[in-house]
Amino acid sequence: MDSLQKLGGINAIIISHSSSDLLPTEGSEEASRHFLQEIVNILLAYMCKLFKRSTKVLDFHHPHQLKEGLEGFTLELSDQPENLEQLLVDCRDTLKYGVKTGHPRFFNQLSSGLDIIGLAGEWLTSTANTNMFTYEISPVFILMEEVVLRKMMDMLGWSNEEGDGIFCPGGTVSNLYSVLLARYHFFPEVKSRGMSAIPRLAMFTSSHSHYSIQKSAAVLGIGTENVLLVKCDERGKMIPGELESSIASAKDRGLYPFYVSATAGTTVYGAFDPLNDIADICERHGLWMHVDAAWGGGLLMSKRHRVKLQGIDRSSSVTWNPHKMMGVPLQCATLLVRKKGFLQECNQLCAEYLFQPDKHYDTSYDTGDKTIQCGRHVDVFKLWLMWKAKGMEGFESQINKCLENAEYLFDKLKNRTDFLLVFESKPEHSNVCFWYLPHSLRNLPPGCERDKKLHAVAPKIKAKMMEEGLTMIGYQPLGNKVNFFRCVFSNSATQREDVDFLLDEIVRLGHDL
Amino acid sequence: MDSLQKLGGINAIIISHSSSDLLPTEGSEEASRHFLQEIVNILLAYMCKLFKRSTKVLDFHHPHQLKEGLEGFTLELSDQPENLEQLLVDCRDTLKYGVKTGHPRFFNQLSSGLDIIGLAGEWLTSTANTNMFTYEISPVFILMEEVVLRKMMDMLGWSNEEGDGIFCPGGTVSNLYSVLLARYHFFPEVKSRGMSAIPRLAMFTSSHSHYSIQKSAAVLGIGTENVLLVKCDERGKMIPGELESSIASAKDRGLYPFYVSATAGTTVYGAFDPLNDIADICERHGLWMHVDAAWGGGLLMSKRHRVKLQGIDRSSSVTWNPHKMMGVPLQCATLLVRKKGFLQECNQLCAEYLFQPDKHYDTSYDTGDKTIQCGRHVDVFKLWLMWKAKGMEGFESQINKCLENAEYLFDKLKNRTDFLLVFESKPEHSNVCFWYLPHSLRNLPPGCERDKKLHAVAPKIKAKMMEEGLTMIGYQPLGNKVNFFRCVFSNSATQREDVDFLLDEIVRLGHDL
Repeated sequence: MDSLQKLGGINAIIISHSSSDLLPTEGSEEASRHFLQEIVNILLAYMCKLFKRSTKVLDFHHPHQLKEGLEGFTLELSDQPENLEQLLVDCRDTLKYGVKTGHPRFFNQLSSGLDIIGLAGEWLTSTANTNMFTYEISPVFILMEEVVLRKMMDMLGWSNEEGDGIFCPGGTVSNLYSVLLARYHFFPEVKSRGMSAIPRLAMFTSSHSHYSIQKSAAVLGIGTENVLLVKCDERGKMIPGELESSIASAKDRGLYPFYVSATAGTTVYGAFDPLNDIADICERHGLWMHVDAAWGGGLLMSKRHRVKLQGIDRSSSVTWNPHKMMGVPLQCATLLVRKKGFLQECNQLCAEYLFQPDKHYDTSYDTGDKTIQCGRHVDVFKLWLMWKAKGMEGFESQINKCLENAEYLFDKLKNRTDFLLVFESKPEHSNVCFWYLPHSLRNLPPGCERDKKLHAVAPKIKAKMMEEGLTMIGYQPLGNKVNFFRCVFSNSATQREDVDFLLDEIVRLGHDL
Repeated sequence: MDSLQKLGGINAIIISHSSSDLLPTEGSEEASRHFLQEIVNILLAYMCKLFKRSTKVLDFHHPHQLKEGLEGFTLELSDQPENLEQLLVDCRDTLKYGVKTGHPRFFNQLSSGLDIIGLAGEWLTSTANTNMFTYEISPVFILMEEVVLRKMMDMLGWSNEEGDGIFCPGGTVSNLYSVLLARYHFFPEVKSRGMSAIPRLAMFTSSHSHYSIQKSAAVLGIGTENVLLVKCDERGKMIPGELESSIASAKDRGLYPFYVSATAGTTVYGAFDPLNDIADICERHGLWMHVDAAWGGGLLMSKRHRVKLQGIDRSSSVTWNPHKMMGVPLQCATLLVRKKGFLQECNQLCAEYLFQPDKHYDTSYDTGDKTIQCGRHVDVFKLWLMWKAKGMEGFESQINKCLENAEYLFDKLKNRTDFLLVFESKPEHSNVCFWYLPHSLRNLPPGCERDKKLHAVAPKIKAKMMEEGLTMIGYQPLGNKVNFFRCVFSNSATQREDVDFLLDEIVRLGHDL
């Protein structure tokens, strides 16, 4: 009831109204405006609270608790309609029991923050409610996609004569596209005849790369065992010599190497593979070079940091997710392809009910047939609007700040005895990986026994952290390293005081373990 | 300038402000609220205008015109930031030059309309800005997905012991999932070993089915030539006997039949394949039966119309897009699978940085590993909220009304001599397919000569229609039928007067051709 009281005066108009009293019903303009205005008031209040450090990041409940219904919040759907008043309460509750991914102390995911301009862009996008298949129904968004992708390709260093691209539902789908294109490049007959008409393929990526490369191999019928994971150095970068020998051994086993995915910003360590060395190898062996810059692509916006992606201009395709390092609301992911017209050639099926050749406008703007999704959500507008609002310089300062936060954390950890860095070198991206050593472990020598105990520390701290809800950070094991924390910075709201808070909180929760 | 003047009083706060004066900047709450409120005012004004019949559906411009910049609206991005005032103008212009897919006279696409509750749901979703991989960061939405999908599976007639599902970025991806699951069902080794370890597969679908089935075959490495298109009757329904003989001939050619996609609501004719007959054949031959009910699934909400999907309970998987017939904002598409746990088994790769087995809550709610996308947009909330608001009965009356509009159009066309129906029987779904015969063609006998001229009629009318912008309808050829109009109803704003208007408009634009 409390939530209702806060809704204010115009609520009187809404009480007892139902959705059938809204547009397009005749004479329902006022009621529709008022209902949406109430929703917006809830969202504005949420947004202002979100950035306050006194607000909790989450109010944790187990699945069974949420399912049982909390203080009248029921997820169940009945056959009868609810009135608008109840819907407003449900909206407040949905936000209340959710996780505030925009909170300055949310360090859990590569995507975080809440950009107000991007948010405005999403609100407009959903109001426009259209689909990206044709120019006919998305004239403005189709052209914006061209403009934004061209900008991004310029930053890769591709000339005006090269480059094409598409917005995808997430980086995994972008990576899948890259494998699909590479396969078609070498074996165009695969589209009609299938994999049985071509040799057994081999793909290469580093052992630290994102699992979507393997997922693509599973989906495309290449098989996960034909994805050869190349060894990394201790910093998480692919070792070029290992790639060479991996290619040779695949050939010896009768496989047909065709594709390498280098990573620019690995998920856990934030490592950048040596792109020029890998490009040399790809050129020598005639392989398709993809760069998975889903996470690291944003650094191209920074004069200070873009050097880490040197060689990306030599790639055949690139994944770059503006919803990660550039802070664009979810989802906003791209796949960029160097060879013009190739997306169309690889994917088109020319369905005539959608892509009529006898239209009165230039149908090369009907981009739907370039894709595998057919219908596509409009993901470009929020990015276009943010770019207008910030310019390159705005993105640059946002990204530089995230990397400064990472350096600040790294410098702090270096000098602590209760924390241990997973690797000693300065972070290249905004990932910082570390263990916390509770008192009981601090005097144990490194080795199996300590590792076994250490492995249990991060999950225990994370569990308490979620129950208390003041901050959030992720953990995972990797290779022979037992569970460690990974802190990432992509939220422009995060300040040094939040980094300090995170460490204090880990100590507070883990001290006595 | 005109657009600026209309922005009203609080605009003063915005003038000369830039995005860096918004949250999370200290002390920027008021400016942020005001900026978003201005955006909302623009959106509310758009929304109210949208449903007015005096508003044009579109204000058409060719790509080169929009690219050159119209009345100061430039799509180009500069390196320097624009102020907030300019962004508001850009937002108004983006809507101005777009297509009003919610307009009562927009008949161009299977998705249309603008549901106010659904829109509120999308605004909240983008404000929450989270991702569907884990319960950890999407507790409420993950549980809502479970609740909504269960409801949908109940309507398919699946028992509580069966059924699983996922929201997908569009029906094409849902269909792709179904083929992927079917392949894994018969050949689980394909995931690791690839297509070279298994026999050459054959898939079956009708010649009227959606092209995404062929696209899936291309992507998954099965090959489009191994998708056998089964003949339809003149109403566009798959002929069961033809499916039988197609399966037999595939076997004769050494192929391994494994998958049939029946369509419940074809894209052009709106036809429903005979599901029970097809299920009998699938059972007899041990094939995976998928039902592509992307367009027709909504009819399950209607007691009057659900009989058309009889037999859908016998399917192994179903595609059903609430963003089509149920009027949910884009995107909202589902894939439902009868075999519990099978999505997980087929797709999981257990990436430890995301799906830690040592979490403190029930990790079966970490649904991300069931998917091929990894990161997933939250598509469930708007549907959940609409379901709360309307109940089953609200969806039912919305859908019944769309089908009544189709019958009304059909009845009108039957009695006209200047229009010709593509098939004579009453529409099963809301699709109505017809030719318009201009004066000059009316006395020609049916045959090649008339067909040649008739083929040019729809594109010419459509071109004029888009230039004038008062309504929009699609056309296409199909099989041996030359270009004809396809009218579809999925917008609850559309009334009979709009149907009348459409026909009058076609006559007005095409009369003298």
